[in-house]
Amino acid sequence: MIPNVPFEVSIEYVQLLRQAVEEKESEFIRSSMDGVLPADITSVLEELEAEECKYVLQQLDMEVSAEILAELQEDLRKDFLSYFKDEELAAYLEEMDSDDAVDILNELSLEDREKVIAYIHSEEKISNILDLLRYDDDCAGGLMAKELIKVNYNWNVVQCIEEIRRQAENVEKVYTLYVVDDADKLMGKVSLKKIILASDHVRIKDLYDSEVVSVETYLKEEEVSQIMRKYDLEVVPVVNLRGTLVGRITIDDILDVITETVEEERQMMAGISEDVEEADSVWVLSRARLPWLVIGMGGGMLAAQFMGMFDSDISLVPALATFVPLITATGGNVGLQSSSLVLQSLANPSIFEDKLLKRLWKVLLVALMNGLVLSTCVFVINYFVGQAILLAVVVSVALFSVVLLASLLGTITPIVMDKLDLNPALASGPFITIANDLLGLGVYFSVAHLLFF
Amino acid sequence: MIPNVPFEVSIEYVQLLRQAVEEKESEFIRSSMDGVLPADITSVLEELEAEECKYVLQQLDMEVSAEILAELQEDLRKDFLSYFKDEELAAYLEEMDSDDAVDILNELSLEDREKVIAYIHSEEKISNILDLLRYDDDCAGGLMAKELIKVNYNWNVVQCIEEIRRQAENVEKVYTLYVVDDADKLMGKVSLKKIILASDHVRIKDLYDSEVVSVETYLKEEEVSQIMRKYDLEVVPVVNLRGTLVGRITIDDILDVITETVEEERQMMAGISEDVEEADSVWVLSRARLPWLVIGMGGGMLAAQFMGMFDSDISLVPALATFVPLITATGGNVGLQSSSLVLQSLANPSIFEDKLLKRLWKVLLVALMNGLVLSTCVFVINYFVGQAILLAVVVSVALFSVVLLASLLGTITPIVMDKLDLNPALASGPFITIANDLLGLGVYFSVAHLLFF
Repeated sequence: MIPNVPFEVSIEYVQLLRQAVEEKESEFIRSSMDGVLPADITSVLEELEAEECKYVLQQLDMEVSAEILAELQEDLRKDFLSYFKDEELAAYLEEMDSDDAVDILNELSLEDREKVIAYIHSEEKISNILDLLRYDDDCAGGLMAKELIKVNYNWNVVQCIEEIRRQAENVEKVYTLYVVDDADKLMGKVSLKKIILASDHVRIKDLYDSEVVSVETYLKEEEVSQIMRKYDLEVVPVVNLRGTLVGRITIDDILDVITETVEEERQMMAGISEDVEEADSVWVLSRARLPWLVIGMGGGMLAAQFMGMFDSDISLVPALATFVPLITATGGNVGLQSSSLVLQSLANPSIFEDKLLKRLWKVLLVALMNGLVLSTCVFVINYFVGQAILLAVVVSVALFSVVLLASLLGTITPIVMDKLDLNPALASGPFITIANDLLGLGVYFSVAHLLFF
Repeated sequence: MIPNVPFEVSIEYVQLLRQAVEEKESEFIRSSMDGVLPADITSVLEELEAEECKYVLQQLDMEVSAEILAELQEDLRKDFLSYFKDEELAAYLEEMDSDDAVDILNELSLEDREKVIAYIHSEEKISNILDLLRYDDDCAGGLMAKELIKVNYNWNVVQCIEEIRRQAENVEKVYTLYVVDDADKLMGKVSLKKIILASDHVRIKDLYDSEVVSVETYLKEEEVSQIMRKYDLEVVPVVNLRGTLVGRITIDDILDVITETVEEERQMMAGISEDVEEADSVWVLSRARLPWLVIGMGGGMLAAQFMGMFDSDISLVPALATFVPLITATGGNVGLQSSSLVLQSLANPSIFEDKLLKRLWKVLLVALMNGLVLSTCVFVINYFVGQAILLAVVVSVALFSVVLLASLLGTITPIVMDKLDLNPALASGPFITIANDLLGLGVYFSVAHLLFF
């Protein structure tokens, strides 16, 4: 018998819960989780094995467990779904918003998907799900939910309230009512506040706000996110090409999009090739890190071959080799700075952006200035350290050229990648490091060979 | 006379607008902007000079121009406010939500702030503003707005609707009503949907939802953001230490926090020391980039001094120098991967996180695996390229050690920085590059000297 402790998101509670699952103490599970917010239960369940997790879910209200299932991390949920029978899963999907149900269905094989859908009872839910399955994951159609409250612009306030009552169970959070014409074309919106304050027989057409920002089904998720941020929207209606209202996207889905984009960018910049986190297994982490390390190694071996061509120069003037880290590191730093500035512009696109040539011209000016400062500093230091003047000149000239070249390369690469529909963050990772190392060494040894030998 | 074109966010429109400002064609400005969303007008105004911008604002509705002023980019707005008289600014602030008004006041000098506040007429607005000015920018108190609708839990639905009517003008977007007791202590919330569907004389105490997630005024903005994301909230009530309801934070403010955090991280990782963007001037951009480049240069010069100690080794075996780029680049790549994984964990904190020692142990295992793969590859390549076996051994041993050390350094540094309340992203930038270069060279030449000479 497990003592009657309250729910708390803690390791101790996870242990008690495990014990309760093992001993099938459903009473402990139910009572300790009573009234707890689903997001908190989710945090705890993510620490359990899939089979334990299923047992806990079965003890809870259908509505609560459906919400938890929708919130679980994707990799855990996949593992987890294999323990469910098709009809069990269908029952949960029936409780969810259509967009969450479709997200889960998309994680199944085509065959399993069909089977699960066959077990769903509500005709409306099935038609909503089939409709949403048509859209790509990463566009407005793939993000939207079908659950919303729409009212005809010929109705009056009483009819609206009737419609809210009818839909109340399906639509959990009501932000705004969408106003449509007889053909379901989106005409505008009306806030619940206005409905509350209006008298019963006012017509919607005299009440509604025709200035409504909407997005079309095919719009990319990044663009939806930019629009919702720009206009401070918590929810945006989605229309098809004919202007018919087909769904709505809520800000919580957009927050997920933003978080994923940020994590993807961070991993690309760091040269990690899979979506991993510290908590993943050693094997998964190694596998995610190796590809770029191996490519980097290839770059390093190429650099070694290249420098090998200057073997005799190096053995004559070994001090030449000692400035290699300065040259490669500066190239890397400058390149990284340049590409990050481009990434930032790409993340916050403006229609008033400068033309490419003007941007490059500016990059060049900045590089000239920074290159001048750095190479002068290096020259002065080398002079005072007592380095040979000729070597000091070589190092400074090469450094200056590397700053210029790395700036241009770091600016152009992400722009080109973006144009090719590749993730521009890739250009800021090990790729730019390798390119800059080879470029820097090339410039340095060419200058040295010309001036020295 | 300017032709009567419709408003469009385009360069052409900006030019027409400039012309209209110059010729004081207020009619053109008013008619082309009629019914346009404030966010679109803001985009266009950000292309104008501060003085032109002021003239345009003066032609618009007070409510619209106040919203635009609240949305303008901070640097532009600062410039812009210098053209306003204290009483003009006060009139705009009077139209804004208290949190936006306070953001603007915080951009003024203490003296100007007092003067502007003195011109505000509404006693309630003044008291709200003075209350908010007490909080730090980066905590829940500094993010919240005072405008919200609260209802007493003893009231009935009719009294609630009266309160909504009374507050309708102050509170633009009503998401939820907050339920308080006689001492203004937060008891729960009730949705507008429930109010609409309930009959008139139902009491709030029988209707409200006591499970409400709230945040305390002193909570850091990152934590507020995590809470709102976790529980999918569009708005969260703020309470003081006694549990009294003092304000609310809306998701649009949190989106700004997230965007700023992301940009700060990106700039830190890239070694850019100020908040700049591509559109800034050459001078500002150079200044933002130089500090880290100079520090990187310092690192490079140190590396040169260090390698200089091995001058005689290098002139005997010049091939030794050719592997320097491989060693430094691999160290840099591994360090960057490690620190990014830590950054990601810090951005998504979990209470179920592994202990530091367990984390480091895992990092070590991953590094062992990757180090083994890389050094074996390098050895095999060197063997087939016909490199001297002894040199091949030196390079592989050094590479293996560098992978291990860079992994540990890349993991520990951001964790330590975070504990010291410094931005851990700093650890992923040029800092880790320099540390890894020096470390890598140290290991490499020590190993070489031991085995060779």
